[in-house]
Amino acid sequence: MENGNRRRIAIDMDEVLADTLSHYLAEYNREFGENITKDVLARRKLADIIPSERRARLRHYALCDGFFLGIPLMPGSAEVFAELRERYEVFIATAAMEFPTSFNEKYAWIKTHFPDFPDTHIVFCGDKGILASDFLIDDSPRQLARFTGSPFLFSAPHNHAETRYPRLNDWQDVRKQFL
Amino acid sequence: MENGNRRRIAIDMDEVLADTLSHYLAEYNREFGENITKDVLARRKLADIIPSERRARLRHYALCDGFFLGIPLMPGSAEVFAELRERYEVFIATAAMEFPTSFNEKYAWIKTHFPDFPDTHIVFCGDKGILASDFLIDDSPRQLARFTGSPFLFSAPHNHAETRYPRLNDWQDVRKQFL
Repeated sequence: MENGNRRRIAIDMDEVLADTLSHYLAEYNREFGENITKDVLARRKLADIIPSERRARLRHYALCDGFFLGIPLMPGSAEVFAELRERYEVFIATAAMEFPTSFNEKYAWIKTHFPDFPDTHIVFCGDKGILASDFLIDDSPRQLARFTGSPFLFSAPHNHAETRYPRLNDWQDVRKQFL
Repeated sequence: MENGNRRRIAIDMDEVLADTLSHYLAEYNREFGENITKDVLARRKLADIIPSERRARLRHYALCDGFFLGIPLMPGSAEVFAELRERYEVFIATAAMEFPTSFNEKYAWIKTHFPDFPDTHIVFCGDKGILASDFLIDDSPRQLARFTGSPFLFSAPHNHAETRYPRLNDWQDVRKQFL
């Protein structure tokens, strides 16, 4: 997997580069006049703490124009991501097929936040077992289980009980691990 | 790369599953009242045989709404593709990043022609070196050069002089090679 002397890292978008959960929270809080924070969700999924009749709203948000484009960067991601690009061959790999309406916005999101990131190194996929990479940083245990390189779990409330993979709690952990 | 007992094949879309060149030709012939056939192009690129002032029209066609969705199947592809899916783990891998406006239509094209093909096995990428697959069938020598599995060149006029890779002239050749 060598490209010159650089090893390859594939990095997930939602919940890793992009703070998707905060964006769901912001939409939810705005619609229902609540003030749920990420801290409250430390070990729970958002869908599990809200009234069941409101759960369908979460998928609705993701299907609305502008949702994916409006997701903020994960705190600390931009700086460490830039440093990783100097030392590794970096791919952005996102399971875009889960929301096929999201292609254009996910592409625009990358171009907005990382304007010089090469199109050649963007992957929209479903099953990340297809990635030929030395490392994968992802919040999804299901994706890490299919990956054939070295998997790293990026912490998110939904994966707090997962113990099979080395865990990176935030982007400072990514820096410590890889830089 | 085993998944159960099945080996993995990644298959390109444009000029392999999809007869993209015929679609360019149809658009060009319609606009300019010509009757250029694929036979005429046996060893030449379309861009090389048309007046230079018309070349920009080719890229224009690809940027028009409906172009990618309207591309016909490559002759013989549907039947052999179905047979491959019974024996291999098949991914469709397309360099969609070359035309970022094409994401939605490429996805819709797959759903139109192969409605039961799983989203998990669709890959929109740039550099196919990222594919972890036993085989790649592609018309692009540049992509095959980056691929780390066994490459197969699907014949197209633009690649007639390429000799580095095993060549598949049509979908009957794909059947003979893999089935």
